[in-house]
Amino acid sequence: MNAPLVCTTVAQLREEVAARVAAGAASVGLLPTMGALHRGHLEIARRTRAENDLAVVSVFVNPLQFGPGEDFESYPRRLDDDVALLAEEGVDLVFAPSVEEMYPDGTPVVSVTSGAAGAMLEGATRPGHFDGALTVVNKLFTIVAPGPATPFRAYFGEKDAQQLLLMQRMVRDFDHRVEIRPVPIVRSERGLALSSRNQYLSAEQAEHALVLHSTLVALAAGELTLEQARRRVDAEPDVSLDYLVTVDPATLTVQEPRPGALALVAAWVGPTRLIDNMRIPA
Amino acid sequence: MNAPLVCTTVAQLREEVAARVAAGAASVGLLPTMGALHRGHLEIARRTRAENDLAVVSVFVNPLQFGPGEDFESYPRRLDDDVALLAEEGVDLVFAPSVEEMYPDGTPVVSVTSGAAGAMLEGATRPGHFDGALTVVNKLFTIVAPGPATPFRAYFGEKDAQQLLLMQRMVRDFDHRVEIRPVPIVRSERGLALSSRNQYLSAEQAEHALVLHSTLVALAAGELTLEQARRRVDAEPDVSLDYLVTVDPATLTVQEPRPGALALVAAWVGPTRLIDNMRIPA
Repeated sequence: MNAPLVCTTVAQLREEVAARVAAGAASVGLLPTMGALHRGHLEIARRTRAENDLAVVSVFVNPLQFGPGEDFESYPRRLDDDVALLAEEGVDLVFAPSVEEMYPDGTPVVSVTSGAAGAMLEGATRPGHFDGALTVVNKLFTIVAPGPATPFRAYFGEKDAQQLLLMQRMVRDFDHRVEIRPVPIVRSERGLALSSRNQYLSAEQAEHALVLHSTLVALAAGELTLEQARRRVDAEPDVSLDYLVTVDPATLTVQEPRPGALALVAAWVGPTRLIDNMRIPA
Repeated sequence: MNAPLVCTTVAQLREEVAARVAAGAASVGLLPTMGALHRGHLEIARRTRAENDLAVVSVFVNPLQFGPGEDFESYPRRLDDDVALLAEEGVDLVFAPSVEEMYPDGTPVVSVTSGAAGAMLEGATRPGHFDGALTVVNKLFTIVAPGPATPFRAYFGEKDAQQLLLMQRMVRDFDHRVEIRPVPIVRSERGLALSSRNQYLSAEQAEHALVLHSTLVALAAGELTLEQARRRVDAEPDVSLDYLVTVDPATLTVQEPRPGALALVAAWVGPTRLIDNMRIPA
């Protein structure tokens, strides 16, 4: 398998996409990431590769989506490892720009906002997070977009449920010519949703973190009420619940558990914040 | 001259643009308007026509850019007249969508914001105005964009100086593949900057409104200090000054009058708010 071409500037990426579309690539897939790729990402990369003639993965630790006191500085950066993993998946292009390339004038004057929908749930403890993520993905969409004649898809994991919904809203509200393809959560054998932040967990904390998934399973099976589920998570040693709610998956409006609803959980395990979610069977 | 084709849906406009580009149109120009076209618009339409193979004018009274208590309901709507005027200029396509077509789910969940830069000057008395204007123009850019291989230009008048600057910022911050082409202010013979809102002025008010231009001329010529200029506008019967400042034209930062600076004035003439601006010669 050939190594992907690593593009570090917007102009270079645009030239490469245009050249490959001109050379016959009939569809383009984009997977936006912050790197530190794990099996969850690679599962999505595999789908991006399989479903498109040209597979592009961006690797960019986006400062706008980290709040003050969050882990922007310490967020893992290992581009060489990421590129090697993406080579195995047959990805064509890796876009790995610097912060200066993406934000040449510093914090953008004009940006994307999700208002109230981005201020609830994850947004309540991470002010500005979703606006930052939307702002950079909006840029990636306009940078990569191959033009109206070429199908363009972008891939997001279902693990970040609120992010996925807001990305779908942005595509609709901004008329972006891209189709969002959601990819199911990838889990460890014992059920822990894969996340770049899992590496911050000690072996013991990783054990405690399993309560998130097992509680969602019991809740989805109707074995626990919402209140019992909350107590179960919070009772786990070293685990502190932030929220466990069920929402309408189309609007994220909080509602009682019911068939088709989406159960969302967020908790700190030691100092590490983890999220997970599960649909209640219809 | 053929009448322009009037498209009322996003899908129809996209099809038309794609078909005409496929048929050989090598460049696309877009003039976004709210209709009620006057000579100022037609001057810009003429440039859009002259500089592009395909000339598109949008006519959409955008509710998002009107504040509560502003004139959204009473804003003039006369599409037939507008189309007839644009026919004379040889415009190819008019995009005249309904509010429901542009905002099918009501107020968009995800939108564009200009933060502090959109909250000063005009934004101070019109909260949300620039965010609304940016949100709709962002949509127009993604709707009309002909693809990377075809030059795409959008035309904005210099009269709305802050709007022009913010549109330029949005293009840069969002990586839109469109070139903004500013068009100089068109004035009446006696100097009044043309505006759709001039029709709200009585003959007497239109006379008083001339103080805006004459004061800018005197300020730009160094015949008045900023304070004298402010007093002169405010002393005019039926005219109430909002602001008269000089700014750095690249950043809109307020600065003392100096060669190359941009003088911006806003005033109410009777109940009608007017703006004007002029560069101080370098």
